[in-house]
Amino acid sequence: MLDQPATTHPFDTATALTPAGPGIWTGLTSDAYWNFGGPFGGVTAATMLRAPLDSPDRLGEPVSLTVNYGAAVAKGPFTLTARATRTNRSTQHWFMELSQPGNDAAITATAVFATRRPSWSHFPARPPEGGDPDSLPALPTGGMSAWLARYRFRFVDNAPSFAAPGAAPASARSVVWMDDSPARPVDFVSLASISDAFFARIFHVRRSFFPIATVSLTVYFHAAAAEIAEVGAGPLLGVADGRAFTRGISDQTGELWSREGRLLASTHQIVYYRD
Amino acid sequence: MLDQPATTHPFDTATALTPAGPGIWTGLTSDAYWNFGGPFGGVTAATMLRAPLDSPDRLGEPVSLTVNYGAAVAKGPFTLTARATRTNRSTQHWFMELSQPGNDAAITATAVFATRRPSWSHFPARPPEGGDPDSLPALPTGGMSAWLARYRFRFVDNAPSFAAPGAAPASARSVVWMDDSPARPVDFVSLASISDAFFARIFHVRRSFFPIATVSLTVYFHAAAAEIAEVGAGPLLGVADGRAFTRGISDQTGELWSREGRLLASTHQIVYYRD
Repeated sequence: MLDQPATTHPFDTATALTPAGPGIWTGLTSDAYWNFGGPFGGVTAATMLRAPLDSPDRLGEPVSLTVNYGAAVAKGPFTLTARATRTNRSTQHWFMELSQPGNDAAITATAVFATRRPSWSHFPARPPEGGDPDSLPALPTGGMSAWLARYRFRFVDNAPSFAAPGAAPASARSVVWMDDSPARPVDFVSLASISDAFFARIFHVRRSFFPIATVSLTVYFHAAAAEIAEVGAGPLLGVADGRAFTRGISDQTGELWSREGRLLASTHQIVYYRD
Repeated sequence: MLDQPATTHPFDTATALTPAGPGIWTGLTSDAYWNFGGPFGGVTAATMLRAPLDSPDRLGEPVSLTVNYGAAVAKGPFTLTARATRTNRSTQHWFMELSQPGNDAAITATAVFATRRPSWSHFPARPPEGGDPDSLPALPTGGMSAWLARYRFRFVDNAPSFAAPGAAPASARSVVWMDDSPARPVDFVSLASISDAFFARIFHVRRSFFPIATVSLTVYFHAAAAEIAEVGAGPLLGVADGRAFTRGISDQTGELWSREGRLLASTHQIVYYRD
């Protein structure tokens, strides 16, 4: 992994896995995607998904992914195990676990894969208004957590502002164009990661910073690999909202749309916050 | 379990677990909640959640639950294992697995528990218009799958109709009052079950019946046990919608509200359909 050519995208370096036996891989955290106190949770989600994707036993394509964040992943190497708990004719269920010495089962995850086949299709959801991304300024990410510089955020609505703490609650809904920086073709693993790239809803609502951590993240994939490949490097139009903040836990729901108006993924998470 | 008094609610009978060793329980499917080809998925989700709830090692209350349906559970006994993969100071992560002879890992699930504490709270989501449930007729459930008679469905908007197959797609959004039949106080396990009691979105959209199966279900709990207890036996106001139907998989998002307008749970699922 350390010997990969310099042309490897930092996201692929950060999520790379080295086989270490049947159903076992090793990996290494990446400073390029460091957050406060651990790796950016999106890269962790992507890494968890990478294991079944890389597995020779894999059947079909990912349909859903749920990642439970039990503890911060410490800087350095980790071991990832992935087990196909159930394989059917056209679906496959997975359980994944990421551990480090002294940090057992820091992350657990499940995924469902399926052989997607042509069927009647219907897309009742509509994308948010996104306008022309190229007319929008990119959010400055200098001096913040390293991972933020690995994405370009161009806010359409409700850009985060930490200017007015203590004011009445602002909207929890935000709309933002997001793409990898540098550019990288969108795929299942990048969709998993970008699903966690929305700013925590409490930052938007309270216009102030609080310690937060994603506790559980779910991603549903609404497109097949070939359809996602047509998107190229994006950008993707993301919309996120939150329903409830109570007793130290809030929720977040999000959608990731292609520039052509195709829903690629929807995502949900619960977030710990300390106010 | 078979010797429980006659006053035990059928839901508690259906989700009852008998300890069979550390982290191991046995259970028995219930004809009262039978669906086509297997138990109603909501009761299965509730049973998966029951294991950590019943565990002497449990910390706190459920915050999230994800259930992956790998195969139909066959009529009869099953074994359920539950393992606390990670226990922290105020959160605990679980992995559960339901197996039968010749039906290994039919169901897998994860859950996050947490010690909920007072914090700043904010509830931006609003309940749908539900009107007076007592003015609405209950959906007739005779002659259909047994489990449907274990709930009362009073539709506010977009009641299922199988009268017009082939017409243009109807709305995927429905609003319905739901409660247990007979009445039963709402709690975490019943919320998990009712989260799967919405009719499949494709029934609403196409106004026709298709073979469907929940593939993965996630439930987020937005209230503490004491707050849920205040709801009594409900009814709960449910709203559900769907974003995309493609390549044999559709999604569903739902909310469960108390009559007093408190969001108790939000839920998401992906559903296999064959058209």
